[in-house]
Amino acid sequence: MTRDVPAESILTGEAIARRIDELATYSDDSECLTRLTLRPAHRKAASRVAQWMREAGLDARIDSLGTVVGRREADQNAARTLLMGSHIDTVRDAGRYDGNFGVIAAIAVADELNRIGAKLSFALEVLAFGDEEGVRFPSTLTGSRAVAGTFEPRALDDIDATGVTRAEALLAFGVDPQRAVHEARDPANIIGYLEAHIEQGPVLESRNLPIGLVTAISGGSRGEIVVRGESGHAGTLPMTMRHDALAAGAEVILAIEAIANGANDIIATVGRIDVPRGATNTVPGLARLSLDLRSPDDGSRLRALNEVAAACARIEQARGVSIILDTPYDMQATPCDAGLMARLESSFKRFGQIPFRLPSGAGHDAMAFRGRIPCAMIFTRCRGGISHHPSEYATPADMELSARVLHDFVLSLGDAT
Amino acid sequence: MTRDVPAESILTGEAIARRIDELATYSDDSECLTRLTLRPAHRKAASRVAQWMREAGLDARIDSLGTVVGRREADQNAARTLLMGSHIDTVRDAGRYDGNFGVIAAIAVADELNRIGAKLSFALEVLAFGDEEGVRFPSTLTGSRAVAGTFEPRALDDIDATGVTRAEALLAFGVDPQRAVHEARDPANIIGYLEAHIEQGPVLESRNLPIGLVTAISGGSRGEIVVRGESGHAGTLPMTMRHDALAAGAEVILAIEAIANGANDIIATVGRIDVPRGATNTVPGLARLSLDLRSPDDGSRLRALNEVAAACARIEQARGVSIILDTPYDMQATPCDAGLMARLESSFKRFGQIPFRLPSGAGHDAMAFRGRIPCAMIFTRCRGGISHHPSEYATPADMELSARVLHDFVLSLGDAT
Repeated sequence: MTRDVPAESILTGEAIARRIDELATYSDDSECLTRLTLRPAHRKAASRVAQWMREAGLDARIDSLGTVVGRREADQNAARTLLMGSHIDTVRDAGRYDGNFGVIAAIAVADELNRIGAKLSFALEVLAFGDEEGVRFPSTLTGSRAVAGTFEPRALDDIDATGVTRAEALLAFGVDPQRAVHEARDPANIIGYLEAHIEQGPVLESRNLPIGLVTAISGGSRGEIVVRGESGHAGTLPMTMRHDALAAGAEVILAIEAIANGANDIIATVGRIDVPRGATNTVPGLARLSLDLRSPDDGSRLRALNEVAAACARIEQARGVSIILDTPYDMQATPCDAGLMARLESSFKRFGQIPFRLPSGAGHDAMAFRGRIPCAMIFTRCRGGISHHPSEYATPADMELSARVLHDFVLSLGDAT
Repeated sequence: MTRDVPAESILTGEAIARRIDELATYSDDSECLTRLTLRPAHRKAASRVAQWMREAGLDARIDSLGTVVGRREADQNAARTLLMGSHIDTVRDAGRYDGNFGVIAAIAVADELNRIGAKLSFALEVLAFGDEEGVRFPSTLTGSRAVAGTFEPRALDDIDATGVTRAEALLAFGVDPQRAVHEARDPANIIGYLEAHIEQGPVLESRNLPIGLVTAISGGSRGEIVVRGESGHAGTLPMTMRHDALAAGAEVILAIEAIANGANDIIATVGRIDVPRGATNTVPGLARLSLDLRSPDDGSRLRALNEVAAACARIEQARGVSIILDTPYDMQATPCDAGLMARLESSFKRFGQIPFRLPSGAGHDAMAFRGRIPCAMIFTRCRGGISHHPSEYATPADMELSARVLHDFVLSLGDAT
């Protein structure tokens, strides 16, 4: 086992930023950062991360789903384990902070624990998941699901755009997918899962806060609203005889917006609209709208969804059109654990930070642990709220603060465990 | 000159319907009715129409723009001329009544005048225009504009999708485009232009009326409304921080609808909407909407357009988005002549018909005569208001009534002239 303790702390903004920049060079595409799950750039990044883990005194391995696992044993027997991590796969033409920051911060925390010779009553595992973005295969979060014990073997039959199955991709990555069931941790032995991530939204920046405490990963309802009216000639069909599908759709859009505005924990978006065969001189007979409705509270979300359905029914009646609301995608919220949040709140305060609470609208590996392993997340301010774009950015100072809060949290947990 | 007077009247619904069905066989496409201007099917249809004109006792020729002109001289010298007609070109996959009915009805009227040996103090010209639909070339109404004296020779340089110019198409049709300027009639010598046409809308059918009296061909403003907001992540951008271009566009659509509903002579349509790069999980940053706003009264139309601009400015302000309203297409209304309408009204009444007045939202050759030659139109009820579609239909009874009203009008004009 390598115990290559560096002389200088890497729990600094500069060191974290340097590693993020280096990791960004591992890309499938020479023009931009694209590191899709299980492709060669992911394999190289995983090796580099494993090396950093070893330098931080962790026992590193790559598990059967491609997750890099770095373990630090507890300083007592029969100890439980704290999981910490994020993901190192990216979207296409990605930013370099999304996921990667959380992994590098967790390694820096482990390194610092090693450097200061911390004695902990629990084990620590740093996890660098590799299947969070869901760009390459239809299913996602396989790495975190395997750890949670909810991995479904049929995900191995997922096929990417080039016809390669996930099972084949895992074999090419150098791991044995048949061992997936063995990755499951026993929840009784796990303290929780902690993840640092850039916010990917503008809330912290708008409040001038470097970090925030995540309350939940929002659940979501997604689907389509299909409005059928009657098409007609824009010049000859009087207003009073119209059943304009787009005008009805416009009313639906504003109703959805008003429902979200009227609640304090709902965000709702119509991001896509299509009027098939739409023409300047034709009254639209058909309009298709997307719906994306999210909330950290599943009850609120279902109430809002019912309000949307009621609004559609009203508009349907008033305009003599038919409106079908179909939201086949339904993802429950993942509430963060109150105990872990309270402990993180204390760490925030020790660094003079307001423990500002906000939900995560975007999905994260923590979702895989819902109902099985307690989770907590902290968000780091990112510039302009921009993510999934090369201009994604977090300052070294904000990243260092986040990592130091994680480190403080781990030490405080040591006191209590 | 052929004076081939048929024994039986062709001023009957059956005869008109038979000719409409026959003319529908002249098509560029064996699968459906497509008779684009100056293509071979148009040439064949023009010859058949000229033959029918001759059978009706008219002197027939094809003018330098491809219009079939059938003339009946007056029974006195220095007489003026009444123009009657419509068009025989069609859209792609067209209905068979649009345009063709008006031409066949006018020939039936001429035939009946001949058959009964009517003595008229004015000449009659039946015009079968061939460039009304504007499908093949960028400019349109060249035939009627030539008669009106407003033909612009640059229309000869129009190029169709296959690279053929209008001048070349006219030469291939067998006419000499260089003679176009000679087609202009002296307005002093023209009584007016009268056209029968299917309504192409549902108003007459909804009122259970077989025919209607057109007040004006509506003017129109057409163009685009571009809404620029800020795109963002549907999961992470709070409602309060959004500048959603589609939600703003939805408000614009409903404002336009309310403006039209609030006026009695405006119809307005947003028929096309585009959210470029729209995605379910993205707050739209850009939305493009079409606008089509029509009125028989130009003052009303411009007032409504100003109200739309004011609504856009309000929405722009309230939502922190930018909205650009651009309506480069601006076509003045063509009011029908009050004297001709009054005379038609008397004819309606002689047939026991309510002279129900309605504007024409669709364009017609009569527009070419605006400000130069008085125009009048009567509309014939069409099934379901459907036009520009193979299911377009008018009953023989309604067509016969329309043609008999035209005939009565011509005879009543004889009394007065």
